[in-house]
Amino acid sequence: SGNPRWYERIRMTGYIQYKYNMAATNRLFDNPLGDSFGDQQGNEFYIRRMRLVFQGQVSERVAFFMQFALEGGQQTPANNEMIDAMVDYYLTKDKVHRFRFGLQRVPNAFDTYRSSTNRQEMDRHESIQSGAPGERDLGVAYYWSPKVAQERFTQLAAYHNGPGDYGVFGVMVYNGQGRSRLELNKDKHIGAKLSYPFQFRNGRLLEAGVLGYHGVFSVQGASAPTGTGAAKCISPLTSESGCDIKDQRITAYVWTPPQPWGILAEFTVGRGPKRNAQTNFIEESNVVGGYVQGYYTWRYSDVGMLTPYVRYGEYYGGFKSINGAPDGQSRTWNIGLVWEPDTHFRVVAEWMSKDGLNSTLVANRAQNDFDASQMRFMTQWFWN
Amino acid sequence: SGNPRWYERIRMTGYIQYKYNMAATNRLFDNPLGDSFGDQQGNEFYIRRMRLVFQGQVSERVAFFMQFALEGGQQTPANNEMIDAMVDYYLTKDKVHRFRFGLQRVPNAFDTYRSSTNRQEMDRHESIQSGAPGERDLGVAYYWSPKVAQERFTQLAAYHNGPGDYGVFGVMVYNGQGRSRLELNKDKHIGAKLSYPFQFRNGRLLEAGVLGYHGVFSVQGASAPTGTGAAKCISPLTSESGCDIKDQRITAYVWTPPQPWGILAEFTVGRGPKRNAQTNFIEESNVVGGYVQGYYTWRYSDVGMLTPYVRYGEYYGGFKSINGAPDGQSRTWNIGLVWEPDTHFRVVAEWMSKDGLNSTLVANRAQNDFDASQMRFMTQWFWN
Amino acid sequence: SGNPRWYERIRMTGYIQYKYNMAATNRLFDNPLGDSFGDQQGNEFYIRRMRLVFQGQVSERVAFFMQFALEGGQQTPANNEMIDAMVDYYLTKDKVHRFRFGLQRVPNAFDTYRSSTNRQEMDRHESIQSGAPGERDLGVAYYWSPKVAQERFTQLAAYHNGPGDYGVFGVMVYNGQGRSRLELNKDKHIGAKLSYPFQFRNGRLLEAGVLGYHGVFSVQGASAPTGTGAAKCISPLTSESGCDIKDQRITAYVWTPPQPWGILAEFTVGRGPKRNAQTNFIEESNVVGGYVQGYYTWRYSDVGMLTPYVRYGEYYGGFKSINGAPDGQSRTWNIGLVWEPDTHFRVVAEWMSKDGLNSTLVANRAQNDFDASQMRFMTQWFWN
Repeated sequence: SGNPRWYERIRMTGYIQYKYNMAATNRLFDNPLGDSFGDQQGNEFYIRRMRLVFQGQVSERVAFFMQFALEGGQQTPANNEMIDAMVDYYLTKDKVHRFRFGLQRVPNAFDTYRSSTNRQEMDRHESIQSGAPGERDLGVAYYWSPKVAQERFTQLAAYHNGPGDYGVFGVMVYNGQGRSRLELNKDKHIGAKLSYPFQFRNGRLLEAGVLGYHGVFSVQGASAPTGTGAAKCISPLTSESGCDIKDQRITAYVWTPPQPWGILAEFTVGRGPKRNAQTNFIEESNVVGGYVQGYYTWRYSDVGMLTPYVRYGEYYGGFKSINGAPDGQSRTWNIGLVWEPDTHFRVVAEWMSKDGLNSTLVANRAQNDFDASQMRFMTQWFWN
Repeated sequence: SGNPRWYERIRMTGYIQYKYNMAATNRLFDNPLGDSFGDQQGNEFYIRRMRLVFQGQVSERVAFFMQFALEGGQQTPANNEMIDAMVDYYLTKDKVHRFRFGLQRVPNAFDTYRSSTNRQEMDRHESIQSGAPGERDLGVAYYWSPKVAQERFTQLAAYHNGPGDYGVFGVMVYNGQGRSRLELNKDKHIGAKLSYPFQFRNGRLLEAGVLGYHGVFSVQGASAPTGTGAAKCISPLTSESGCDIKDQRITAYVWTPPQPWGILAEFTVGRGPKRNAQTNFIEESNVVGGYVQGYYTWRYSDVGMLTPYVRYGEYYGGFKSINGAPDGQSRTWNIGLVWEPDTHFRVVAEWMSKDGLNSTLVANRAQNDFDASQMRFMTQWFWN
Repeated sequence: SGNPRWYERIRMTGYIQYKYNMAATNRLFDNPLGDSFGDQQGNEFYIRRMRLVFQGQVSERVAFFMQFALEGGQQTPANNEMIDAMVDYYLTKDKVHRFRFGLQRVPNAFDTYRSSTNRQEMDRHESIQSGAPGERDLGVAYYWSPKVAQERFTQLAAYHNGPGDYGVFGVMVYNGQGRSRLELNKDKHIGAKLSYPFQFRNGRLLEAGVLGYHGVFSVQGASAPTGTGAAKCISPLTSESGCDIKDQRITAYVWTPPQPWGILAEFTVGRGPKRNAQTNFIEESNVVGGYVQGYYTWRYSDVGMLTPYVRYGEYYGGFKSINGAPDGQSRTWNIGLVWEPDTHFRVVAEWMSKDGLNSTLVANRAQNDFDASQMRFMTQWFWN
């Protein structure tokens, strides 16, 4: 039978998200884990994401996935970063058991596994995004995915914007510093997930699961305990200048895709780094948050679809990935409409309203709070 | 009939321009909008351009075009920049009406639409290059291209180094700061073009057109009005530290390709930013310039071609894209020979002689003038 | 017969090297020409190399080869650098005579021509690596490769991890500063090679050769002769702030691949820049060094292979590519085991023991010496 040609084993896909936001109703408006360029650069064209993917199953047991992030500085596009760089090694040819090596998504939450091409909303909610900003890390994972689950995950991905197959059970050991960050301590994070894709007799699909991780996170931009910065470490800095704080979470979710209505809800609790505005110290604090989203897809023609959605979420905890681990508490509404006139073209209009804290830190001062909104527009293009 | 495979819808092409210049006859020699690396780095090998293009028509109505610039710092090649990142959405399946989104060429001049793989000369002339340095910007355009024009633009591109189909009529709204620059004000540039590709009874092709744009350009590197820099803004800086000055032009051109002789001429007038050497202030000033080029292609074998060319041009106006908007007035000769021994290989030797101003700015001093020349060599390789 | 399609002329391949080192037995341990990230970042996951290659024979006489280095900062992957950017122009259609233009490997040593995917050991030995760190430079080369040699080089590459066809005779003119470095003087390096791939009656293959180069290297990071830095130039700095020192070498090698046992040995002598610890001056000094490696490949199944190897080498000379040209003398053992369970997957464990000098320079002080070891692990994945 012979080997297939390179272009039958390797393929290239990609997409662009091209945006234009209105100015927010308040200059303090801040979306630091989401579209942190567009929150201030209102009334300008910019590229939110431009991605190129090379992927393939190159032997019976080896598959790879590489994603170029080409948006660079949003108005200065370049490959400042590789987003995915991973390899699967199938222990069994039925793909039930596999190891995954490299830069890959971590077990944090359902939405952490979903690409922005899968989601309707423009940003993940901060409650779960704060657990794994950038979604990926360098590590090694194992996934167990029995045949029936493989098929349902594939069906969810093909027809319902599911994230693909991340196993019924998965466990991962990783650096813990987050995507495109130099590791600042020697501690490893360990995370795991359990989930199942159910199918009811009427065809309704429903996935539910629980994820959790444990580790020590090393916060950047902290000054030494005796320093005078806006964010001081409660213990001495690591040899790589990080501030080590315990970091652990459990997150549960339920998702039923739009058939034609759908619901997604996630809830998270844990402990993690947060700067104390009274003392300027970064402390281990409680994390709690979650969101619920409803949506409805109207298929108005052979290819055309309209999907209105609404999401409400709250978060109470720190932003570990931002210098000094600011307090990230917020209450946020996202109301939007997705128009898909073509298989390769999508238009999104979203109104975002957030009541929260600006993440800028000033010594001996509480963060500014704001209650503001922003109207945002996006065209998204797929090539595959 | 089914969908074509990915490699029938998406393709990859590219090219390298590999150069070696002799030292210029004067160290003040300056070619800041053209090959600004090679004007000083004489007697060294370097990569002028290395490009990779991914493009495709991925659905009946959606096409994309992405160009990687891989030359980086010329002797330190890398993807410091994406040059094109655009998508076409055809409103009609006959491709007469289309929208173009993303990072794309702006309506400034005929040569702004031509890639360096289309041109014989190594650099565009400063008279038109100064209107759109980098040629591209982030915006949205509409193009109207009736069937007969589509065919002639295609013929000009395939056989005569034409730029491809940029419509008989086009209009574009864009940030206005230029390629790979952070936008420094909220003003949008708007540009438009009208052109037509004529064909005479003897087969001679001739394209003529007019282009224009209007906007407010935000000059970088200006100090505040009360400052002491080499270039001061006449009004307060924008919130993003730019110096806002009116920027508008009209450009007319006529082009007949080498059959076997050809001519290209462009002429531009307008208003734009220019630093005043007496006061150090960046002021709104007159822009006027143009060039005329003649060439002749001798097809000496089945694939071999020799094309001598000569170009003379003058420019009087500022360089808005350079820090402080220096005076860019010049008179320039380019005399060259292009040898194409293979379909995928080209050698160019060019003698450039320029009488103009060095773009370096020193407070309270006029720019240095020079009258110097440089001999330049290039090999160019295409893969497709 | 018509042109082949683009995907029959152009192809894409790549690989990842994903690593995890144990901490070295001494913090002074230093591997500056090899894996200089992993020598200090013990107990962390990182990407040693991630590469994507686009290559093709695009016309009868033109072939190209472009390699993206995507490992960026090892834990911050990005395209910070293009590793190869070269074009072959075949003077004769039998490929006996060819020119090569662009960023390409220089004639320095046998191992300089071998990719890390060809080698068993994780790093080249410093004795030959110090002659051409980064292996490539910008220049023009000519290669002569008679038919029988072409066939044997191809066979060595396909079955025995040979570097491919670098000619029986080759000569190259190049900038001399090394890969991804701005050239700091106008001097050109010139190098040449002679080699021959023998085949004995019993099938045993053996390649032997000699390489040499001559030029003036411009050391970075030197202070002026009258300065007070840790490394001072003995003559005035160049206009581009380099310190010019004569740089020349001759290297001889013999290689017989594992059939099933194999041997590789190289020996080099020359002159080059080295900082004198007594005076802080960078001086022209002697270079001498070499290594010998033995290995054995056990094919334990249809695709599975195990290859233990051992290498010992010594080097006495400077490191011209490192700021200030530190003394690089060392004695190094590398003992490793390569496991190849799949055609696209390799695991390497290596113990490296080095007795040498730390390359950090302090004014008026000799470099610290160390005698330390490090255990290193790598998984390597190929896609093609």
